[in-house]
Amino acid sequence: MGEKTFVLAPDSFKESMTAKEVCIAMEKGLRKIYPAASYVHVPMADGGEGTVQSLVDASSGAIHRKEVSGPLGQPIMAQYGILGDGKTAAIEMASASGIHLVTKDTRDPLRTTTYGTGELIRECLNLGIRKIIIGIGGSATNDGGTGMAEALGAKFLDAQGQPLARGGGALNQLAHIDVSGLDPRLQEVELIVACDVTNPLYGEHGASRVFGPQKGATPEMVQLLDANLSHYAEVVKQQLGKDIRDVPGAGAAGGLGAGLLIFTKAVLRKGIEIVIEYTGLQGKLNHADVVFTGEGGIDFQTKFGKTPYGVAKAAKEAGKPVIAIAGCVGEGIDTLYSEGIDAVFGIVPGTADLGKLLREGPENVERTMENIARVLKLGL
Amino acid sequence: MGEKTFVLAPDSFKESMTAKEVCIAMEKGLRKIYPAASYVHVPMADGGEGTVQSLVDASSGAIHRKEVSGPLGQPIMAQYGILGDGKTAAIEMASASGIHLVTKDTRDPLRTTTYGTGELIRECLNLGIRKIIIGIGGSATNDGGTGMAEALGAKFLDAQGQPLARGGGALNQLAHIDVSGLDPRLQEVELIVACDVTNPLYGEHGASRVFGPQKGATPEMVQLLDANLSHYAEVVKQQLGKDIRDVPGAGAAGGLGAGLLIFTKAVLRKGIEIVIEYTGLQGKLNHADVVFTGEGGIDFQTKFGKTPYGVAKAAKEAGKPVIAIAGCVGEGIDTLYSEGIDAVFGIVPGTADLGKLLREGPENVERTMENIARVLKLGL
Repeated sequence: MGEKTFVLAPDSFKESMTAKEVCIAMEKGLRKIYPAASYVHVPMADGGEGTVQSLVDASSGAIHRKEVSGPLGQPIMAQYGILGDGKTAAIEMASASGIHLVTKDTRDPLRTTTYGTGELIRECLNLGIRKIIIGIGGSATNDGGTGMAEALGAKFLDAQGQPLARGGGALNQLAHIDVSGLDPRLQEVELIVACDVTNPLYGEHGASRVFGPQKGATPEMVQLLDANLSHYAEVVKQQLGKDIRDVPGAGAAGGLGAGLLIFTKAVLRKGIEIVIEYTGLQGKLNHADVVFTGEGGIDFQTKFGKTPYGVAKAAKEAGKPVIAIAGCVGEGIDTLYSEGIDAVFGIVPGTADLGKLLREGPENVERTMENIARVLKLGL
Repeated sequence: MGEKTFVLAPDSFKESMTAKEVCIAMEKGLRKIYPAASYVHVPMADGGEGTVQSLVDASSGAIHRKEVSGPLGQPIMAQYGILGDGKTAAIEMASASGIHLVTKDTRDPLRTTTYGTGELIRECLNLGIRKIIIGIGGSATNDGGTGMAEALGAKFLDAQGQPLARGGGALNQLAHIDVSGLDPRLQEVELIVACDVTNPLYGEHGASRVFGPQKGATPEMVQLLDANLSHYAEVVKQQLGKDIRDVPGAGAAGGLGAGLLIFTKAVLRKGIEIVIEYTGLQGKLNHADVVFTGEGGIDFQTKFGKTPYGVAKAAKEAGKPVIAIAGCVGEGIDTLYSEGIDAVFGIVPGTADLGKLLREGPENVERTMENIARVLKLGL
């Protein structure tokens, strides 16, 4: 029996630990029982919050900051990542245009704009980046990605040739889209969009109807925003010759999905697949004896593209067992066993208020991992 | 690799599951992974609450009920157990004379009596029982066991030869103890007292000072009760020739420990040791591949005679690994690893209110056990 190799590939535990911190706590616990084992840290994400941090951590890259326009035009300090290769950037749209940047009483999906996200893309172009991975979860916007495109040189004009006000509320006045000033470097940069939703741009399952209300849209606003995106798609089709009306994912992030497809060479991919690729997880699995993953919550929804599911799929391909831990073990985890997750353990030690549990995440991960290692070592 | 044998020896999870119910849930979880294994249920207790139930369950005995005098003289329905051999009874003094039988505003340790406990013993004698195991935790009393003795025929008289009022408050008037009417069968019955405390009858670490306040004694009452027990010991020494003044455990259960030592052929033993003996645990461990135990809470105090500790000690002797589960994994569990507990897992799936956790105990035990089994089977 040689020394063991453990691959640690958890997501972050939201509001408690980054994925990297989870890796560290996992190793600490395992190391008490397997002191001479090899520990391979692969901090993961699924394209949502924490994706930039994970890709940066996994590639030994760096986080950068840049002042951009927030969802309502206010200046905000957004961050993005340059991966270890120096040629790939990672952006989360929420960092520039996210719902968390808008207070509950200033929510206004008629006015919120993805302009800041476009500024981040421009900054990456200025830095000579060749590839941009962009996570688009957590948006405050419903502008069809027009703000993003405007920051990159596109012009959205009304019948009088005047620029529209930013935000999805003004798109009913859209008469002309001028792409003559669009940054030409966009044609040379690879844009990979982490997108797990399949919603179309408008209609019953469109951006405004499905996601508008959680961004503060009243029923009347939803109707207006939906009609506006429909009109926008029509203008795009007529003037740019691109038909994104039925493209799945076009409705992601208030239509930023559509905007990226229209104005850049973006491809939409499942977030977890992108992260698996750019962390090199599959290759790292080859020598693993056991793979550990985890997330704040694990339940029946984990199957729909969450990190533990993606890790399990990759591990199954490599024929490796997977043990998962979670802050909250929800309903339906028994459906995960057949997906490659061999066991799931909660880390919560007993009844305690959420604040305490979030604060004590690392020690709870460590204790749970030590005890899993103890049972692993017992074997039967 | 032949089929496995698992010994399931948990305590109850207080307010959630009896030890027997924990065994059932444990097996349910394990059986999903080891469907052909043998499962040996040994519902445990440590001499405290649940001891009668466990001894009855482990021996396929039966619970019986009997109306007796409660701590304040009110009629109450107490229960006791007849073990599977038909010759051994198990009593919890709290069932007849426990603090839970007194409401907060009627607490009066000057008056509370162990009379009902004596009635239960007498009932056992009437049934031809040869051996009585008696758990003495959770008492409402501070009467030195005089009530118990009175129910069995002893008389406690004042200087005028009049019987004292029941309860520890009257013992300062004790002038004469008449044991001529004491039930002679007491000399033929073996009485085994589950007692984990070493407090003497009176003094700084005595029954009244240490346990009086939690039974409702004011500082003045404590002083009176303590002096009374001292006087009682003096009278016992002079008239019965028994010196229990420095006997460890005499102060248990408000001095019921002393009373049993004075008026019966009782021996005091550690609760968990009694339960291990009467459940036959040690013998059942011989064929075990893994021993599972558990309790509502596991922490540094577990070492002080709690069930998981006792089970681990017995298993260690037999060279068997032990895995424990708990509703609440507290501080200091790492001190248990060297005591024979190989691993400890919490069963709580996440944040939830206590009521829900108590209600869903069985499914949480089942899920946790299944996942432990999954890791056991992985082995390394």
